[in-house]
Parts: sequence; C-alpha cells; structure tokens
Amino acid sequence: MKMWEGRFSQQSDRLMELFNNSLPVDQALIEEDVLQNKAWSKALAKAKIVQPAESDAICIALDELLADYAQGRLAFSAEDEDIHMALERLVTQKAGVAGAKLHTGRSRNDQVATVFRMYVKKALKNITGLVSMLQSTLVGRADNEQDIFVPGYTHLQQAQPVVLAHYWLSLFWALEREKSRLDHAASTADSMPLGAGALAGSGFAVDREFLARELGFGSITDNSMDAVAARDFVLEALFAITSLAIVLSRYAEDLIIWSSGEFGFIELADAWSTGSSMMPQKKNPDSLELIRGKCGRFAGNLTRMATTLKGLGLTYYKDLQEDKEPLLDSVAQIVLVLNVFAQVVATLTVKQRTILHKMDPFLYATDIADYLVARNVPFREAHRIVGKIVAFCIENRRELSSLSTAEFARFSSAFAEDVGTLFTLSNAVAHRDLHGGTGPESIARQLRKAKKLLD
Amino acid sequence: MKMWEGRFSQQSDRLMELFNNSLPVDQALIEEDVLQNKAWSKALAKAKIVQPAESDAICIALDELLADYAQGRLAFSAEDEDIHMALERLVTQKAGVAGAKLHTGRSRNDQVATVFRMYVKKALKNITGLVSMLQSTLVGRADNEQDIFVPGYTHLQQAQPVVLAHYWLSLFWALEREKSRLDHAASTADSMPLGAGALAGSGFAVDREFLARELGFGSITDNSMDAVAARDFVLEALFAITSLAIVLSRYAEDLIIWSSGEFGFIELADAWSTGSSMMPQKKNPDSLELIRGKCGRFAGNLTRMATTLKGLGLTYYKDLQEDKEPLLDSVAQIVLVLNVFAQVVATLTVKQRTILHKMDPFLYATDIADYLVARNVPFREAHRIVGKIVAFCIENRRELSSLSTAEFARFSSAFAEDVGTLFTLSNAVAHRDLHGGTGPESIARQLRKAKKLLD
Amino acid sequence: MKMWEGRFSQQSDRLMELFNNSLPVDQALIEEDVLQNKAWSKALAKAKIVQPAESDAICIALDELLADYAQGRLAFSAEDEDIHMALERLVTQKAGVAGAKLHTGRSRNDQVATVFRMYVKKALKNITGLVSMLQSTLVGRADNEQDIFVPGYTHLQQAQPVVLAHYWLSLFWALEREKSRLDHAASTADSMPLGAGALAGSGFAVDREFLARELGFGSITDNSMDAVAARDFVLEALFAITSLAIVLSRYAEDLIIWSSGEFGFIELADAWSTGSSMMPQKKNPDSLELIRGKCGRFAGNLTRMATTLKGLGLTYYKDLQEDKEPLLDSVAQIVLVLNVFAQVVATLTVKQRTILHKMDPFLYATDIADYLVARNVPFREAHRIVGKIVAFCIENRRELSSLSTAEFARFSSAFAEDVGTLFTLSNAVAHRDLHGGTGPESIARQLRKAKKLLD
Amino acid sequence: MKMWEGRFSQQSDRLMELFNNSLPVDQALIEEDVLQNKAWSKALAKAKIVQPAESDAICIALDELLADYAQGRLAFSAEDEDIHMALERLVTQKAGVAGAKLHTGRSRNDQVATVFRMYVKKALKNITGLVSMLQSTLVGRADNEQDIFVPGYTHLQQAQPVVLAHYWLSLFWALEREKSRLDHAASTADSMPLGAGALAGSGFAVDREFLARELGFGSITDNSMDAVAARDFVLEALFAITSLAIVLSRYAEDLIIWSSGEFGFIELADAWSTGSSMMPQKKNPDSLELIRGKCGRFAGNLTRMATTLKGLGLTYYKDLQEDKEPLLDSVAQIVLVLNVFAQVVATLTVKQRTILHKMDPFLYATDIADYLVARNVPFREAHRIVGKIVAFCIENRRELSSLSTAEFARFSSAFAEDVGTLFTLSNAVAHRDLHGGTGPESIARQLRKAKKLLD
Repeated sequence: MKMWEGRFSQQSDRLMELFNNSLPVDQALIEEDVLQNKAWSKALAKAKIVQPAESDAICIALDELLADYAQGRLAFSAEDEDIHMALERLVTQKAGVAGAKLHTGRSRNDQVATVFRMYVKKALKNITGLVSMLQSTLVGRADNEQDIFVPGYTHLQQAQPVVLAHYWLSLFWALEREKSRLDHAASTADSMPLGAGALAGSGFAVDREFLARELGFGSITDNSMDAVAARDFVLEALFAITSLAIVLSRYAEDLIIWSSGEFGFIELADAWSTGSSMMPQKKNPDSLELIRGKCGRFAGNLTRMATTLKGLGLTYYKDLQEDKEPLLDSVAQIVLVLNVFAQVVATLTVKQRTILHKMDPFLYATDIADYLVARNVPFREAHRIVGKIVAFCIENRRELSSLSTAEFARFSSAFAEDVGTLFTLSNAVAHRDLHGGTGPESIARQLRKAKKLLD
Repeated sequence: MKMWEGRFSQQSDRLMELFNNSLPVDQALIEEDVLQNKAWSKALAKAKIVQPAESDAICIALDELLADYAQGRLAFSAEDEDIHMALERLVTQKAGVAGAKLHTGRSRNDQVATVFRMYVKKALKNITGLVSMLQSTLVGRADNEQDIFVPGYTHLQQAQPVVLAHYWLSLFWALEREKSRLDHAASTADSMPLGAGALAGSGFAVDREFLARELGFGSITDNSMDAVAARDFVLEALFAITSLAIVLSRYAEDLIIWSSGEFGFIELADAWSTGSSMMPQKKNPDSLELIRGKCGRFAGNLTRMATTLKGLGLTYYKDLQEDKEPLLDSVAQIVLVLNVFAQVVATLTVKQRTILHKMDPFLYATDIADYLVARNVPFREAHRIVGKIVAFCIENRRELSSLSTAEFARFSSAFAEDVGTLFTLSNAVAHRDLHGGTGPESIARQLRKAKKLLD
Repeated sequence: MKMWEGRFSQQSDRLMELFNNSLPVDQALIEEDVLQNKAWSKALAKAKIVQPAESDAICIALDELLADYAQGRLAFSAEDEDIHMALERLVTQKAGVAGAKLHTGRSRNDQVATVFRMYVKKALKNITGLVSMLQSTLVGRADNEQDIFVPGYTHLQQAQPVVLAHYWLSLFWALEREKSRLDHAASTADSMPLGAGALAGSGFAVDREFLARELGFGSITDNSMDAVAARDFVLEALFAITSLAIVLSRYAEDLIIWSSGEFGFIELADAWSTGSSMMPQKKNPDSLELIRGKCGRFAGNLTRMATTLKGLGLTYYKDLQEDKEPLLDSVAQIVLVLNVFAQVVATLTVKQRTILHKMDPFLYATDIADYLVARNVPFREAHRIVGKIVAFCIENRRELSSLSTAEFARFSSAFAEDVGTLFTLSNAVAHRDLHGGTGPESIARQLRKAKKLLD
Repeated sequence: MKMWEGRFSQQSDRLMELFNNSLPVDQALIEEDVLQNKAWSKALAKAKIVQPAESDAICIALDELLADYAQGRLAFSAEDEDIHMALERLVTQKAGVAGAKLHTGRSRNDQVATVFRMYVKKALKNITGLVSMLQSTLVGRADNEQDIFVPGYTHLQQAQPVVLAHYWLSLFWALEREKSRLDHAASTADSMPLGAGALAGSGFAVDREFLARELGFGSITDNSMDAVAARDFVLEALFAITSLAIVLSRYAEDLIIWSSGEFGFIELADAWSTGSSMMPQKKNPDSLELIRGKCGRFAGNLTRMATTLKGLGLTYYKDLQEDKEPLLDSVAQIVLVLNVFAQVVATLTVKQRTILHKMDPFLYATDIADYLVARNVPFREAHRIVGKIVAFCIENRRELSSLSTAEFARFSSAFAEDVGTLFTLSNAVAHRDLHGGTGPESIARQLRKAKKLLD
C-alpha cells in the first residue's frame, strides 16, 4: 500500500510503479537521508512534537538500517517509491508509532532537496580533493622537468620553445580555476531547504538553525517555494564538472598526439595503455582517449538537466526526479577520470632526445624579430624581414642557424655578428622570463606559488 | 592475461582495467554478438580457414553460452574487457583450438560496429512498433470523440473551437513523421561493416554478402575505413528518439495543464497518477511529468554523442567506446515512455461538461470576421471591426452571442439578421471542413487514412 | 597585403578571407581594444621600447579612431582580418613608425584574450545590474502584495495557499544566486593575459602589473600557455547566463499559465502583449513566451562553446575564433530579456477576485492533518485519515469546510469543535511562519533582508 | 498602427516592439513569402473570394516589392513586426482594397510554416549539391592517388598501410549517408501547411492541392493543429547539418595533424592558410581549424531548437519565433564550410616521400599473423607469437623486415623462407582486396560506383 493512497480508489499500474520508482537511483543517497532523518527527529523532539524517547528510537532504527544496507541486507519492497519512503516504512516497522510520526511537518519536497544538496556538497569536496592530487602530480613533474625543452604549439605548428615544466604548470593554473568553480557550486548547495515543507513552509515551528548545524549547512534557505523548486545547485555542479572535463580533454588530446609515432615525445606506461585484438604491434593510449571521449558524457548530462529545467513552472513537478541520475553519473565518472589522468601523467616517459630531434629550426624566428626590434627596427617591419628570411630558407632548404651574418645582413642592415647567439634553446627560453613566461625565474616563481597553494 | 598483451612488459593497472572495461554495458549486445560469431565461423569455414567441424563446435559453444547467460550462469572474468573478448575466451574454453581461430581475419573494430548496428536496427524496429501502438490508441479515442468540443489554443489563449478527435489526430500525424525518421535511422544502420578488419579490410577473402544475408543486413559497407570509424548510425538513432521524445513532451505539457483544477478538462486514471507524501488531497499527473522531464535525458544523450564525435580523427579511437551507453539508455527509456503515454491516453477521462463551461464566448470572433468577408468586407477591415466589437464586449461585460443584430450593425452595415446563427460550436467547427480542418468530413477522412496506415 | 604574409608566396583566396574574417563580429570589442592598445603603448614607453612621444601619438590616433567609429566613419579594408589588425593598420596610417612598433612584444593571442576578458567583465557587470533592477521590481510588488492569496502549486495542482509576495520573493532569492554566479564568472575573467605573447611569454620585460592597473584587472595570469589557451572564462559566462535564463523561463511558464482564461490570475499590460493577425479577440503574452523560448538560445550558445572547446589541444587554434559570437549573442539577448521581464512584472494586473474564486477548498487538507498531529495522532495516520475525508468529499460533492464536527468525528475521535477555525486563508498562511515560510513575519523578514541586499 | 490592435486600448511598448520584431531575421524569407502570397491570391480568386483582377494586382505589387527589395529600396516601417506583415502592408499601399483582402482565410501561423518549409527545402537542396561537389573533389583526388601509400591509424598509432585513395573515398561514402539524411529532412519539410489557418483549418474552402502544386510541395498536411505546431522539420534539418559538420570536423582533425611538422604528410595551399601576427615563420591551417571549430555552432543550434521545443504545448506559441535564426545560421555557415573544405582538399599537396619515410615498419605485423594463420596456426596463437616478435624488435632496436628466417623461426616453426616477401607496401595493400578493402580492385570498384552515383 502506498503511503499517500488514502484518497485513491484504484491502485497504481505496475508499469507506473516501475516508471515512477527512483529507488534504484536514489538509494545512493541513503547515508545522507539517514543523517537528515536523525536530525529531523531530534528537531521534532526539540519542538515537543515527538518524545525524546521516540526520537531516540528513530535514530537507533536508522543506524541499524544503514548498517543493514552497508551489508546488503536491507529488504526493499515493491511499494517503496524511493529511498525516503523506504526508510520511513522500515523505521516504522522497527520503531512503531515513533516512525509514523517521523514525516510530521516535512514533505518529500524539502527532504529530497536537503538530502541531495548534502550529497552534492560531499561529492564536490571529494572531486576538489582529487583535482589537488592531480595538481601535485603536475607540480612533481614540473619540478623535475624545468630543463626539458619542448616546442610550444599554436595551430599544431611549432611556434616557440618552452620548457616542459611550463606546460605541466599551465594545467596546474587552469585547475586552480576549476577548483574555484567546484567550490562555488558547493557553496550554492550549502543552504538548507529542510523546513520548507511541500512549498509553503512547515506547519510546525521546527528549529531550522539547529537542523542546519546538525547537517553541516552554512545557511538556511530564505523562501520555501524557492527552496523546493530550485535545482540550480545541480546544474551548477554539472557545469563545474563539465568545465573540468573539457580542460582535461584538451590536455588528453595533446598527450595522445605526443604519443603518436610521428611525434614520439612521450610514451605511456604499459599499465595505462592497451593492445589490439588483431594487430600485435599496437600500443594504444586508451586511457587518454577515454578521458577525452567521456567529455561528451559530462556535456550531455549538463544539457540533459538544462533541458529538463527549461520552462518548468513552480514549485515541484515530477520532472525534477530526473535530476539525480546525471549528477550521480558525472560524479562517479569524473572521479575515475581524475584518478586515471593523474596516474597517466605520473607514469609517462618523456623522450627528450626525440623531442630535440624534432624541434623546428624556425622556432627562433620570433627571437630574430625581437633582435631587430632591439636594434630599433619597428616590429611590423622586423616581422616582414624575418618572413622574407624564412621564405629564403625554405626555398633554399637552409636552416636559420646556418645563415652567415652576411646573409642575414642582406635582409636588414641591423643584423650584426651577435645574431648567431640567438640559436640556442636555453637562450630562447631565458629570453621570456617575465611573470608567466617560460623563463627559469618565472618557472621557479610558479612552482613556489603552486606549492604554497597546495599546502 | 589479456588477449593482446604479447608485446607488453607490464600489466595493466587495476584502475585502468576498470576504466577500460565495457562489459557491464555491452553485455546487452550478447545476443547480437553470438549471432555475429556464428555467422563469422560459418564464413571462415566457407573460406576454408576453419574446418566445418570447427565451425560447428563454435556455434554449439556459442548457443550454450547464450543459454547460460539467459539463466544468469555465465561467469565473466576480471580480464574480460568486453562481451566480445569474454565470448572468445569462453568459446575457446569449450571448443579449444577452434575457438582460438574464431578471431581470424576480423578485428574488434568491425565486429563491434556490426554487432552494434544489429542492436540498433532491432531496437528502432521495436520502438517503431510501440509508436504504432500509441497511434492506435489515439485513433481509438479520436473515433469516439468526434463530437467532443474543446478550445483550440494559441499562446494558451482560447482561439477557435475544435473537436477533441482533431487534437488526438494531430499527434497521430506527427508520429507518422517520427516513424519515418526512426525508419531512416534504421536504414542507416542496415549496412554491414564485418569484413572491414581493423580498418584496411580483412586479410582473408571472406564472403561478405553471405555474412550480410546471415545477419539480416540489407547491404555491405563500401569502404573499410568508413566502416569502422562511422558512428553516424548511433547519432541518427539518438536524434530520432530525441525528436520523438520532444513531440511527446509537448503533448504531455498540454495534458498536464488540462489536468489542473483550473482547466479540469481531463482526469487521469488513478493507476497513472500518484499522491503526495504530505498533502492528502493531491492527485498528481506524475506519469506525464516524467514523460516531459525525461525529454532532457534524450537530448542529453544526443549532445553527449555529438560532443564525443566532434573532432575525432579516423579511424577508431577508444573515445568511441562511449557510444553504447547513451544509445542503450535512450532505447530503454523511450520504450517505457511510449508504453506509459499510450496507457495514460487510453485511460484518461474527458470532462466534456467542464470543458463546455470554460469555452470562451470570443471563440467565435474569427467566424464573425469570416462572415463579414463573405459579405464583401475586405478581411483586414473585417478583422478591425471585430476587434472593436470584442473591445466593446469586454468593456461592457457582454458576450458576443448576446449582442443584438442592431448592436452588431453599429460596427458595420454588413451585419444582417443571420449573424446570430454563428454562435454554435457545431457550426463553427463544420465551417472548417477543408482537407486537414476540424470539420466532420475532414475528421472522417483523417480517420480513414490513419486506420489504413496502421494496417 | 596581410601583415603576416612575408613568408607566403601565394595570396589568400577571397573565400578564405571571408571565412577567416572576424571583423563583423569582433568590432564590438573596439572600445576594449583601444584601451588595451593605449595601455600597451604606455607600457612599451615605460620599458623604453618606444619613445614617450610615440606612445602619445599612438594614443591620440586611437582616440580619433574610436571617435570615428562611434560616428560610423571608420573605413575598414578588405584585408582587415579582425578589429585588432584593422586598428594597427589605421594607427600606423595616422602615427607612422610609432604605429609599426605597436605590436612589439605582443601577439594577437594575448591581445585578443585580454580584450575579450575586458568585454566579458563589463558585460557581466551590466547584466548583474539588470538582475538587481528586476529584483527591485519584485520587491516592489511583494511589498504591496503581502495580503493577496494565491494557491501554491506542486504538479500544477493546488497544494497550499501562499501570499503572492511569497511567490515574487521566491524569484528574488533565486536571482541572488544567479548574481553570485555572474560575479564568479566575472572574477574568472578578471586576470590579465597581456604579456603572455603568442604562448611563451613576451620577449620584452613589460610591466604587467602596470598594465593590469591601467586596464582594471584584479590580477595577472601566472602561465603564458594557459593565458592564451584558456576559454573557461567564456564558457562560465555562457553558463551563468544560461542558468539565469532557465530560472526566468520557469517563472515565464507560470505567468503564461496564469494569463490563460482558465486561470485568469493575472492580465498582462497591453503594452507587453500582442494580438493575432487573424483572430480579433486574441491577446497573447508574447513577451513571456519569447523569454521562455529564448532559453533555448542561451543553452545552445553554451553547448556550442563546450563542443568547440572539447578536445582542442594547446595553445591557440583558430577554432577559438568561434568564441565571440555566442557570447555577444547571449549578452545582447539576456539584456533584452531582463528588461522585458522586469517591465512585464511591473505592469501586470493581479485579479485577486478571480484567484479567490478558483481556490480549491482542499487546500486546507494539510492543515487538517497538522491539526490531528497536534492532537497526538501520528502524522502518517493523520495523513491517511484526511485522505479518507477528501475521498468522502469528492464522492459526495462536498467541500471540506462544509463538514460538521460530527462528520469529521466519524473519521477520527481527535476532531473537536475548533476544527472549523481551520478554514480561512489567513489562518492557513499564518500557520507557516517559520523562517522561509509564507507567514506574515517570515514575509516581513524576507522583505527587510531583500531591501538590505539591494542597497 | 498594428494590424491586430483593434481590441487593444494601449500601445505596445517600444522595447516590446523591438523584442517581438523578427523582421531583421525573417526578411531572408522574402522570396518564399512573395511566392506564397501570389499563390494564395490566385487560390482566393479560384474560390471567388477575390476578383481575378484583384489577384493580378496583388501579384504585380508583390513582384514590384521583391524587385525593390533586391535593389535595397524596400522601405520597412517600425510597425512591421515581420516580413509577412510588412508585405501585406506594402501590397495594400500599392493595390488598395485587393491588398486588404490578401489575408482572408489565412493566419500567420500557416503562412509562416509554409514559407519556412519552402526555405528549408531550397536550402537543403543547395547543401546537398555542395556535398556532391565535395564528393567530386574527393573522387578526383582518389583517382590520382591510388598508388600513394599512407599509414592507416587507430588510436593515432600506425596500424596498417592503405592507399590514400581509400582514405579520400572513406569520406565519399560517409557523405553519401549525409546526403540521404539531408534528403530525408527535405522530404519532412515537403508537406504544405497552408490552409491550416490559425489552427483549426481555414474558414474558406481554398484549393490546397492547387496551392501545393503552385508552391512545389509534394503533399499537403493532414491536420491543421499539427500543421501550425510542428517544427520537427526545422529540428531535423538542423540535425542533418550537424551530422554533416561532425563528419567534416573528424577529417579536418586528421588533416590538421597531417599538416603538422612532425607528420608532414600534406601541405595546405598558401591560399587556404594564414600566417601569424607575431611569429614570422608560421603557416597555419586556419581553414581546417575553423571548419572543426564551427562544428560547435551547428551542435549549438540543434540544442537551441531542441530546448525551445521541449515541453511547448500546442499549437502556436511565440517561442516558435526562435526557430529561424538557428536554421538560417546553420545553413549559411555549412555552405561556407563545404566550399572551403572542397577547396582545401583540392589544393593541398601530398608529400609522399615524407610519408614513406615515416611509415612504421611494424605496419606489417598483422600480415605476419595472417601468414601464420595461413600456415595453420590458430589466430589467437599467431597474434601472441607476433606480439613476442614485436617486443623482441623493440628491445633490440630491430626492424621486422631485418629479421632473418632463422630468427623468425625461433618464435614459431611455421615460418618459412617466404616470410620475407611480406614486407612491401604493395603486397600488404593488395592482400586486402575484398569488397571495401584497400586493395587495388576494391579501390577501382569504389571509384566506379562513386562516379556512377555522382552522375
């Protein structure tokens, strides 16, 4: 029998029960619902709506049920629409009349919103922790790879040399912003709806501040209609995770390309690669490909929630039951993605020799232009001169560094003997040592700041 | 031990195995993979690559494994990356050397693409059948509700009267187009990749036409690289399902509004409604709300696949492993949605008395304008005149039908005694009897054509 | 002639120029680019790369160009790929060699990222201001409508009575969170990339802190590769706007339904409604429908940017040129939406008489259950009892308030004479006066806090 | 003055007019609207609602207006809400009373739906033509590049050699499916709504079959409510374009990677590349990057329309006004993308020497496994043996082709003298000559079929 079926003359269709049932999904929130039920029973006792002994009985029953669940021994019934109805039923079995009082002054609307926010807060905190772990891995590599040169790319064309540490740190800083977004999403979820009732506020003057303290909320919601209708906290969490996944997909793309035979800059550990069912020689960076491919999943979950919310009136509609599955999926998957990405980065091998071999000699072109500027050639003119030199080199299959001073001088009288000193990677890199650049002091500064942030 | 690990010196990390493993998802394709394996073993025998007896042994083993699976007795191993590797391993356990020959001339790339297309074809056919079932329900209601008047709406403002049959039939015709899209998606999937190998074509001259006949494909793919890289068949299936879900969400919205107390046009059967955990009087159209809300899920799955595919080079990348989950989810959920929607429509009660009571007397305004046009007033002028009459009625709290001929005549000399005959619903409806209109002959014509299409 | 064509032997195809040209879009950033160019020329002077007089000449030229643009007198050329190249060309025309030095030590990569962030910050601040304006409108209505009763809905079924002020305030609080998200997005954009060069850092030691102060940035980016590659600031801005639009779409949906003849709760001002080209009686809430419909646009722009960014390697690719159009569109449209929404709310008429007439007598059901709870009936039992009473009323076409005490007592001995006092709206509302509820003190508290926040 | 303002007492707000106005967008449909108006006036004449002379006057006026528009001389007014109202107003200016009769029996609802479907049909046909043009380019290259070997990739790891013709043809076949989807979308739009009126059917018995013939529609809609509410034709067109764009983004990704210095397989023509504002040596494949990046735009437009349609009741709501902008944008941009892509492919240079140089000797690994299979080694065993050989080669820095028969024999006794014949590209490719493979006869067959399809 349904808990609400007093006014109904006909039973639910079995298919309707299946369609309506969210238990397979929302039992993931059992821990949060137990905490919430316990706090609520205490608040009811505080408000003299139940006896202290009744509240105690409820709490004991709940602890037992959670323990049962943890051991796979909780027996759900076909009538349990969701974890909340299931727990109320089971508490009532154990605690009798006390259990029948548990739902006093509360609606599933405020209850579900509260429990789900608790879950979102916990999940986001966990994800933020994993991002920090990945950042540590990056800092570790950067620390060791301050002297490894790699081409910096734009348009997948070699542009200017950088040190590999600079590349790893670029992700570090991007992740700082992702953490800030995750934190903001968590703060959005950190206001407690409990006490909002179905939509108009509870009919009993429970102590909401007490409840918030018990449940670890930073504040309580100010309006009961907003409290039960709002799902922006889900949307924002889904967005923060998507944004994070997009950044990771971008670095995964780079590393997949760097793993190709043609680049050959890095090699993934065997433990994070896979082979082919047909081609015996293959070693594939599947881990990174999955990370990149799963980006679609996160974006899809975001679109899903946005579409469901669009044009949905107030306050609660059953459409909102569709809020949990995308969030649970995005959380579970980003946890995997972060762990795998950190391991892949930690265990890959950098092939400095190959990288040096593949450096394009034209990488110094900007430095030549800058050299001319320092000798008073306006930049736009300098750019044009170096363009001509590059064209000359391509046509004559020459390398920049092989040109004599006299040859340089044919393009501009500003060139002098010292132009030859430009053609070393360490000079090129050292040259770009302002705040944020790839020069050694800038790298050291980044590392110091990064380590401090991680502490 | 992995089937491909010959060249690897280090084992996969356990987390990598978990991350990479698609067995929990792709075992849904076991039936198709068994069929494909059996057909492949026959083709290998036909090409003299295996002995007929070996092919037989493989087929027997596969049938046993499928039977085991159906009974929940198939023992997967931690090393089984996917259903395909699992079956090969298990066949080899049963059939020995024959099993070890099964993967000859084939790659998981062409195998997975083939098996997944088979699944998509089957699923889309099933969905199309359910759409037809829903259409039958609509025709049934339309047949019985040719004389029930309801307001037709634009902007949720009553616009012109129609018969309820016309409304139900509007969905019938929309669903015809959805079926056409589902069919087209199925035809996209109806070309067999098997024989494409990893990407360059099988190294053995297997008879692909024979395979296609065995597996029920209408054609074979023309290019092996396209065959293993393409996932447009997944994307199109996801789109066709999304488009269908969007149409259903629109009608669900209408029916939810019609179920409100303020409208009160229909009442859902108790079996397809639910109550409130807190408010004893509530009876909520949860079934329709879930149908509307789940629309987000379908759109999300489409975005998910599109995002994963964007910018993914050829031919196969592990990113593509993310193709099955959204499709399986969309298929399973649209099946539920179609069944529930049909039941809700079949069992709802129409409250004609309430509807008539709520009909806006201004519904006849267009008919008055048309009346003037028939008396040679240019339409734009007629529209303006009726606008003035409406304004007059609102200001003076009068109904259109209460105006005397003299009063009408104050607005235009074209009004005559017979203006009074306009104010009946049956006249208003009969008036619009051209092809596609809400008039009785148009309804009869629609019903005839609809029934013929369903046969 | 292109500024970069030194090394090219063949000219761009005309179609390529058209395809590549972003000037029609990015000239919207001209004001920001002028500021950035001026600050950059000053920084170059500070670093002794240009003469103070050259910097002055550049600044004067830029001011003139901006003034020309404002008057529609700026002559772009077919070779101007974007606003940045156009300005450099035009400055050079005016200021000669000084202009040719302007691009020293800078790349379009860091330049565009800087200018776009400036634009995003300005736009988000403007939007936040408009949200506050809408909030003021809501507070104004709430102030005046503390005594207007409306049904609160769940599932579009009347659930419990609230005061209209509570409804308006629910949007106020939702908007507080939207403002917080807009602020966070602005803070993401508030770090200056200028000085990052193409990707490795400028080759000249310009004073980035000075530049940040000049341009109003709160900080400078820490890593040049991240600085030019990152577009999370665009994505986050698009998300914040989408989230805001979704909330507005939900309230628009409510108000559209409330505008229907069947509800008749509100009437939009003529100034914010439109008529029909065909049906003279129609008055349609087009303003609200557009607000709801445009929600798709914002969600689409978000998906667009997410899809473009997915899997895009570092650092800059031309794919990123697609970042501006969705942002400019979302900004322009949300500005319209917010203005219109505020006006619609400010000018609509509430029809209290109609609302009262349509209140469902069962709205008191929860209060009866709460009454029983106060008389020591366990809530779950009370819920069931009231369910039975509701079923009895429906069957016998009775209203709750019409039942005698004796009739109530047939359902539970806990009912006493005072049950009759439950059936007034003001009692029902007063009953829910805890923090966040619809009771009078809670409303007063909300209003005080809301007004304080707006100050 | 608005054409519908008869019943209104207050004028539209100026902001409302701006917000509501779709003229800047929908004037793109002027040609279709003129055709539709002319056909409608003839149908009115046929039904004796207007005089033949009136119909003629209307048609003449419309032709004049279209000519004026083409010359930029059409004067719109601030009150023209859309192109349809504008044309009616202007026709009435020119043709007097005849113009005032033009809107008889018609609503903007059926009018807009009709005109938009005409536009969609035309646009999709145009796009299909451009796809064929791109296919011709591909066939042209394939014809000439049947003997150019390139590595086929999975996971961006070299897998098996193919001929370049096979790669170009893979896109040819993918585009065949895209054309089929575009055609299906056009067929969805090919049913005429005109005559549906506002929603209930026209009040005048116009000859819809005549109208359909005049306007080139294949059929007429069967239900007036569906006719004005449906926008699946827009959604399907947006999807078909998105699907096409995704395929192009995948090939663009490949070609961008092939353009990198590290791959160096191709070089884009200067005409389809661009340089850098800062780095003189750069030559960037911007054309392909834009094609890939714009994929987000198409996906965004699809999400946009899906979101707008979700949960939108029947029949017409102003939300639907948001249908044109995404379609017009997707059409205009895919036309650019297709033209550019075809040009890029037609003009790029293939660097066969570099490609051969970068071929991985392990590309023959599958062939060795197949060799063993032909000598009766079960495939799974053969795969494992070759895996060991590969590991041996890597460890000892040997190439497969350098192993002596004796060395091979250490891994399996099945190896014989002829193993050495495996190591030529032409053998490896010839080996895979079944239908769809990369072998010479398969390529010839593909080319014959492709050319036939293009005729």
